[in-house]
Amino acid sequence: MSKEITSRAEDYSQWYNDIVRKAGLADHSAVRGCMVIKPNGFGIWEHMRDQLDRMFKETGHVNAYFPLFIPKSFLSREAEHVEGFAKECAVVTHHRLMNDPNGSGVIVDPEARLEEELIVRPTSETIIWHTYKDWISSYRDLPLLINQWANVVRWEMRTRLFLRTAEFLWQEGHTAHATKQEAVEETLKILDIYAQFAEEYMAMPVIKGLKTVNERFAGAEDTYCIEALMQDGKALQAGTSHFLGQNFAKAFDVTFLNEKQTQEYVWATSWGVSTRLMGALIMTHSDDNGLIVPPRIAPIQVVIVPIPKPGPEIDEAAQRIMTALRSKGISVQYDRDDRKRPGFKFAEHEMKGVPVRLGIGKRDLEKQQVEVARRDTGEKSSQGIEGIERFVADLLEDIQQNLYQKARTYRDEHITPVDDFETFKLLLESKGGFLSAHWDGTTETELKIKELTKATIRCIPMDAPEEQGACILTGKPSSRRVLFAKAY
Amino acid sequence: MSKEITSRAEDYSQWYNDIVRKAGLADHSAVRGCMVIKPNGFGIWEHMRDQLDRMFKETGHVNAYFPLFIPKSFLSREAEHVEGFAKECAVVTHHRLMNDPNGSGVIVDPEARLEEELIVRPTSETIIWHTYKDWISSYRDLPLLINQWANVVRWEMRTRLFLRTAEFLWQEGHTAHATKQEAVEETLKILDIYAQFAEEYMAMPVIKGLKTVNERFAGAEDTYCIEALMQDGKALQAGTSHFLGQNFAKAFDVTFLNEKQTQEYVWATSWGVSTRLMGALIMTHSDDNGLIVPPRIAPIQVVIVPIPKPGPEIDEAAQRIMTALRSKGISVQYDRDDRKRPGFKFAEHEMKGVPVRLGIGKRDLEKQQVEVARRDTGEKSSQGIEGIERFVADLLEDIQQNLYQKARTYRDEHITPVDDFETFKLLLESKGGFLSAHWDGTTETELKIKELTKATIRCIPMDAPEEQGACILTGKPSSRRVLFAKAY
Repeated sequence: MSKEITSRAEDYSQWYNDIVRKAGLADHSAVRGCMVIKPNGFGIWEHMRDQLDRMFKETGHVNAYFPLFIPKSFLSREAEHVEGFAKECAVVTHHRLMNDPNGSGVIVDPEARLEEELIVRPTSETIIWHTYKDWISSYRDLPLLINQWANVVRWEMRTRLFLRTAEFLWQEGHTAHATKQEAVEETLKILDIYAQFAEEYMAMPVIKGLKTVNERFAGAEDTYCIEALMQDGKALQAGTSHFLGQNFAKAFDVTFLNEKQTQEYVWATSWGVSTRLMGALIMTHSDDNGLIVPPRIAPIQVVIVPIPKPGPEIDEAAQRIMTALRSKGISVQYDRDDRKRPGFKFAEHEMKGVPVRLGIGKRDLEKQQVEVARRDTGEKSSQGIEGIERFVADLLEDIQQNLYQKARTYRDEHITPVDDFETFKLLLESKGGFLSAHWDGTTETELKIKELTKATIRCIPMDAPEEQGACILTGKPSSRRVLFAKAY
Repeated sequence: MSKEITSRAEDYSQWYNDIVRKAGLADHSAVRGCMVIKPNGFGIWEHMRDQLDRMFKETGHVNAYFPLFIPKSFLSREAEHVEGFAKECAVVTHHRLMNDPNGSGVIVDPEARLEEELIVRPTSETIIWHTYKDWISSYRDLPLLINQWANVVRWEMRTRLFLRTAEFLWQEGHTAHATKQEAVEETLKILDIYAQFAEEYMAMPVIKGLKTVNERFAGAEDTYCIEALMQDGKALQAGTSHFLGQNFAKAFDVTFLNEKQTQEYVWATSWGVSTRLMGALIMTHSDDNGLIVPPRIAPIQVVIVPIPKPGPEIDEAAQRIMTALRSKGISVQYDRDDRKRPGFKFAEHEMKGVPVRLGIGKRDLEKQQVEVARRDTGEKSSQGIEGIERFVADLLEDIQQNLYQKARTYRDEHITPVDDFETFKLLLESKGGFLSAHWDGTTETELKIKELTKATIRCIPMDAPEEQGACILTGKPSSRRVLFAKAY
């Protein structure tokens, strides 16, 4: 495996693309903006998905599946929603191909035009709330706590693997509640799950906050988010949870009979994270040698490499170690391929981000030892085979914590309070990261700052203390700081 | 919960629809032919999917994800393939909507027409083999053993929930091999996995066989299948595994350098099962009281109902039982809802097919007992709470075996050897099931029989012994019997 990976210092963007390709995560496809998620990338996504799924189920959510297609007229029912999505959607107009009568292959059959065009779902609020109308009539039917794992399509013009693709995979939760309070609580509960997942599993520190009116979801009353910081100082929105009020219930006429026997509109939330998290994962931890995957979401946590090649004794030791590791729930692979040399394998597993590598050579075996290398720091040590499973279990936990702490330290060092616009602009270009500054609360000012600096308000942090100050641009009064950053 | 379920004897087709709706499995949607898979249905599908996924992974397969869209020109590359799918596909022609200048809402933006139309995948051989061209250059890159779980769209004109829908969920495996022999072995290995899954998990006996030329997949050299028999005597194709030869490699120019350093086309297989299995599951086991789910794929294996209502003592006993059952890996739910009476709950859980119900009343508690009801036979008994987890574990296994045996007996009694066409027609209308008969091997005769009787050749069973005979229609010589049936 040739490394040929651009360093971060040289070209961060190219470094990212190199990792995605060389670590076997994803590839461009023949269809503009659509990606192929390759086995190594999909394996990580599966682990992230399964963990999130467990967390949703533990909090009472169930999965379901709604149609891929949305009738065009549905999109128009919620005014802001259609405004937000109409400009970037794939439209199905026909349901049949035919042989070209002129003999030039296959063409769309003009006779097979649909009466009403169908939109490939960019998100499913409309089709789901149309369905909920049939499912909800009484307060006894509430709450509905439903999630779906699905593909969605938004016709983005400028795409990047994982970060912004025309088709992507995600989960979208859509809940229905009898009261506003319960819906708001659900919105925040999910935000907490997202944050917990990002921090404890992806080892990625995040800031929980509220989006500004300008940045909120099309059709929401409030959009909450988790914001992460990438190694190049740019922010990345890693998940959003929306309190939708009664907007979609009104648009699709979904009411229920409450306990006092009066009709009321249903309260709603929706929330999602997507394969974009893969991009966040890569840019939070990886280095110039390739991908780094936190142990808790790594498809393969340990790889065993025979040195210089497999043989009966080494095979036997590898089997013994695998059994021991698996008894602790550790996933392990023995790279027995005798067509590749150890150095090649080391580079390959390093590139793919396997957290721990065990090397077994003949001399190691004589001492009943293996060489242990950790991917995050590159440190190596010799360890006895006896009890190796306990050592590796602890090591994996240590790597998980180390990755989080490292990212956390970087993130914390890159939240900078700023009180004047010149420093703001300077810091944005030099240090980057989050700039904590006062803002007068208007969309006008927010857009002006974006126009002047390319920085957007990432969020109003949940824990931002009240503090009197003056807007960084207009000098008007402000009562709390918000976080600005350039963002993906 | 009102039962209102049509009996099988009265109207089998309506019985099926009633179960799908009343057991909360699926629903029609606002989009013609597309279904909503409801939480109870999706829960069963998840369990089936996860088990199959484990079986694929245990045999060396990995998951990946390929684009939803296929460029129109790709479909045309393999002649039979386009013939098979062009007439029923959803075609994306535009990528944007706009406000109607005449003010009548949202319309397709004529400026946003795609240069080349995109087809929503009906199956992914073409886009995947286009991708494999980049992934394969040497025998060292082979085999590729890749599967994807995805949604696909085939624009069916007559749809039925689960059995035939425009959009459905499935897995599609696509493997690439260096030799014909290895590809054939893979095709058969997957067929075995499908059969094992159907029999051991769905408790649904199946016959493994080869499809006739007329019934094989568009683009395959050989299509193998598993065929099941429904309670109304109609057959259902439950899964297919295709040996694709070098057809797609040739269509997409995928070659590799073999060990002798010469270029060769790659050998291929593809295979799939879909949410159609849900239809097969329903029609194999369920009865006039509702759905019956085999314990190994049931999302909830045991439900506990307090009689007549919850209270501190009953709650405490329920908790104790749940802990005991869960220690054995049994999934259990306590239906504590005090707004519903026990009789209502019994009917509801019966309708949803929960394999075992435990009823706890005060008098039971005094004796430290619970009432155990099994869904398959309806039998009830009293059991001590002490050691209940062992009793229930055994009971679940017994239910699993009983369901299989019952379906197996029915199936075996409905494979009837027939040697003349009059009896063939008579049996088809009276007894139904599989008719084992001689056939002269021509598509012409096969189609003629279908025209006359609506029966198709379901498969040439793998274990059909050589036996000289005369074709049931033409009297021409035949060397083995094939299975005819009316089919879903």
